[in-house]
Amino acid sequence: MTAKPVHFKRVTLIGIGLIGSSFAHVLRRDQLADHIAINARSQQSLDTATKLGLADSTTLDPAEAVKGSDLVVICTPLGAYETVIQTIAPHLEAGCIVTDVGSVKEMVIETLSPHIPDGVHLVPGHPIAGTEHSGPEAGFPELFQDRWCILTPTPGTNANAVEHIAALWQTAGMKIEIMEAKHHDHVLAITSHLPHLIAYTIVGTATDLADDLKQEVVKYSASGFRDFTRIAASDPIMWRDIFLNNREAVLDILGRFSEDLTALRRAIRHGEGETLSETFTRTRDVRRKIIDAKQDK
Amino acid sequence: MTAKPVHFKRVTLIGIGLIGSSFAHVLRRDQLADHIAINARSQQSLDTATKLGLADSTTLDPAEAVKGSDLVVICTPLGAYETVIQTIAPHLEAGCIVTDVGSVKEMVIETLSPHIPDGVHLVPGHPIAGTEHSGPEAGFPELFQDRWCILTPTPGTNANAVEHIAALWQTAGMKIEIMEAKHHDHVLAITSHLPHLIAYTIVGTATDLADDLKQEVVKYSASGFRDFTRIAASDPIMWRDIFLNNREAVLDILGRFSEDLTALRRAIRHGEGETLSETFTRTRDVRRKIIDAKQDK
Repeated sequence: MTAKPVHFKRVTLIGIGLIGSSFAHVLRRDQLADHIAINARSQQSLDTATKLGLADSTTLDPAEAVKGSDLVVICTPLGAYETVIQTIAPHLEAGCIVTDVGSVKEMVIETLSPHIPDGVHLVPGHPIAGTEHSGPEAGFPELFQDRWCILTPTPGTNANAVEHIAALWQTAGMKIEIMEAKHHDHVLAITSHLPHLIAYTIVGTATDLADDLKQEVVKYSASGFRDFTRIAASDPIMWRDIFLNNREAVLDILGRFSEDLTALRRAIRHGEGETLSETFTRTRDVRRKIIDAKQDK
Repeated sequence: MTAKPVHFKRVTLIGIGLIGSSFAHVLRRDQLADHIAINARSQQSLDTATKLGLADSTTLDPAEAVKGSDLVVICTPLGAYETVIQTIAPHLEAGCIVTDVGSVKEMVIETLSPHIPDGVHLVPGHPIAGTEHSGPEAGFPELFQDRWCILTPTPGTNANAVEHIAALWQTAGMKIEIMEAKHHDHVLAITSHLPHLIAYTIVGTATDLADDLKQEVVKYSASGFRDFTRIAASDPIMWRDIFLNNREAVLDILGRFSEDLTALRRAIRHGEGETLSETFTRTRDVRRKIIDAKQDK
């Protein structure tokens, strides 16, 4: 796919965190919308969005925000989707495309689909991009550059709407992949959700240490620990909702991980050096493949 | 402590991997030795060291290498220490300082001490620096810049010898900390050994996946997984030896980690959102402290 020109009359962003604000920057930079309407739960976020020049209009009321929009992008934590769609559904106009940026897709389709009115098109999406920073100030237009965006349309999804959303993210610099929602959730459980859970856990284990030891952990963090703290600084509410909404896939891969960790623990306890060195040799290969796939930067 | 001028007649490096070769680069750059003798197990490594201009003499025989040396630096994996010290001990001259760069210190003292002849000084050391690359070609003199070096002398260690080694690593750009070996091993189990074990495990879990899924893990690795693959690419033999030689401290912290992970797993299974968000909020604070301590780069 190559990007084709895309333009909207009125784009509504529901939620203006890292992804929402970065997307608004793209809309502005490339003049993709005549009007950007922003809705958020706090007036402070709306004021920040206005100050940053991202909004043509702001409102605390999602229903008001979506009126007259031909594109609505849901950028809230997953836990807010049910309330959002119930509130906005009666005010969506025919022809409008509703998309989202959530990290779990099967549950999103289950939550949103039943509320989507006839003539409105749902295109579930997941731009895989982020930093450990949150909030509207954290956004920047290059966030999406050269990253993957996964779209998970259902068999009934309007093909033209999918093409529009694909073109939009391509304009933002992303590479597009279409896959089934269930498969997306399984892949992301491994590449993203499990790593985050592990990072949160190890940093949590360290924060439970005695105070003097905790200071030394910070002091000598460059020896490995530090790499985990960056991703464990990600938004807590967003991540709570990801784990609650991708429970099955996360528990499955977590079960495999726990088994593997128990096996290594046993090898350490019993001094089985060969088990350790064999495992550690296999893992090198994966790093090499990531470097070959140019995903290491 | 501030660095004072330090100079050796003949420095012998036993092992010429990432740390050994980086240290040789420093010796050359700052002209800290009249003669650099390098010993390694393979002729290929010795040839590489010669080609890089790091060696004044090379030999496959550790005993020959240490003759006439006033400083011997053991830079091999921990598993080789016993053989190395047995081989070199009869050839160490009075006044010589023996130091090492191993990541575990209590076991190093237990292994080396009994063999150290009278008049020879053992100063166990751990320059906390590294990359995921291995071998003599991976070395560079700036590796140690602004990093911590922990020395773990025993009560009987010659104070002058400790000062010499401290000054040496300071010349390499390091900050010096003196601590008890047991405490060092406990701190490093948390900051370095556990993170590496976890990274090896998660990358190992991913390599066991079906081939098509494995390809997607590489493709979407930027979403979190990638951060783990870098440290899981570290030298397998070096890390095998670290886990075997710091067994108690690693198993202790691994036990705590496993408990914490089980608690989060339970919270996901039972949909206990508050447990998740509370844990994820606490961990942010640690990242902030690391940034404050300027250990984030």
